[in-house]
Amino acid sequence: MNQPPALDRLINELSKLPGVGKKSARRIAFALVFRPNDEVQALAKSILNAKEVIQRCDICNGIAESDICSICNNSLRDHKTICVVEDPRNIFTIETSGVFNGVYHVLGGAISPVNGIGPDELTIGSLEKRVKNENINELILATNPTLEGEATAHYLTDLFTGKLQTISRLARGMPMGGDLEFSDPGTLSRAFEDRTNYSVT
Amino acid sequence: MNQPPALDRLINELSKLPGVGKKSARRIAFALVFRPNDEVQALAKSILNAKEVIQRCDICNGIAESDICSICNNSLRDHKTICVVEDPRNIFTIETSGVFNGVYHVLGGAISPVNGIGPDELTIGSLEKRVKNENINELILATNPTLEGEATAHYLTDLFTGKLQTISRLARGMPMGGDLEFSDPGTLSRAFEDRTNYSVT
Repeated sequence: MNQPPALDRLINELSKLPGVGKKSARRIAFALVFRPNDEVQALAKSILNAKEVIQRCDICNGIAESDICSICNNSLRDHKTICVVEDPRNIFTIETSGVFNGVYHVLGGAISPVNGIGPDELTIGSLEKRVKNENINELILATNPTLEGEATAHYLTDLFTGKLQTISRLARGMPMGGDLEFSDPGTLSRAFEDRTNYSVT
Repeated sequence: MNQPPALDRLINELSKLPGVGKKSARRIAFALVFRPNDEVQALAKSILNAKEVIQRCDICNGIAESDICSICNNSLRDHKTICVVEDPRNIFTIETSGVFNGVYHVLGGAISPVNGIGPDELTIGSLEKRVKNENINELILATNPTLEGEATAHYLTDLFTGKLQTISRLARGMPMGGDLEFSDPGTLSRAFEDRTNYSVT
């Protein structure tokens, strides 16, 4: 391969990004080197700037531009209800939907013995402190509906039972707009199990 | 959305890259801000460095770290055979296969009246000069087997007929390892048309 070393290095760095394989990395690299200089500078600058200013929120472990994130800092939100998620990205997915007005707690992953991730690798300790000190009413477990996410939800339920009013779990079932034809057995079995009553009066 | 502005800017810049949508951009941005500082610096540096040192080759319009690319500069290659491609990336795809030892010419796209790209928008003028001055034997047309690529190949065939020994086009047909079941009608019709004889003697 007669590829210039500078391009090789760029492709190599790009392919370390999540979801970017060798082929996409090459595509991006070629696009970048033929793009106007100011656009390329803007990208590099935004990477360095984001890395510099963004940190973990001291309270919820989400992302913030100061010690406390804008959600934990917002007095209009319900600070007695904590939605527990695996990843900081989940917060923005939920925020986009606009259905939740409480605060969050980011675990930093899910319990996965296979990958050597036990409760101590997650921020469960700081969640315990919050529940104890902040007089929390409800914990909404919004870990992913995967093996690991379910195991984590069970673990948290055991841990917090008796320590606050309500522990709930996001409903699992048919996704809105989904097609029964393409549902997997796990989803379908859960949709039957948790079916809601349309009572006839 | 309570997303920090620095993260918003990064996601915005990342989503301008080819093949990176808003969701992938967010995934990459979150991964970047939680990555060790030296890795993030390395990525930003490799972007700026590649942009700075990489340029178009004066001869073939491919990419180079100096005025002439390493292929055009290589005296061991067959400089009488030019493989004509649409995009600089195509060079590296062909080089990886190791089947070609000639030199290249990058058109910078394909003729596409719908997108306002005529022959003058491509590097066809400089290809004409090369054919005239460098005593070329063969032109291998390796534009994509798309509507635009085929049109470009026809245009070049008309333009160069009578001006050099051989004009050829990469074979089109069933891809190796492909499955007849999943072949589109266009490919199949071409595979029948261009079938090769297994003569019985």
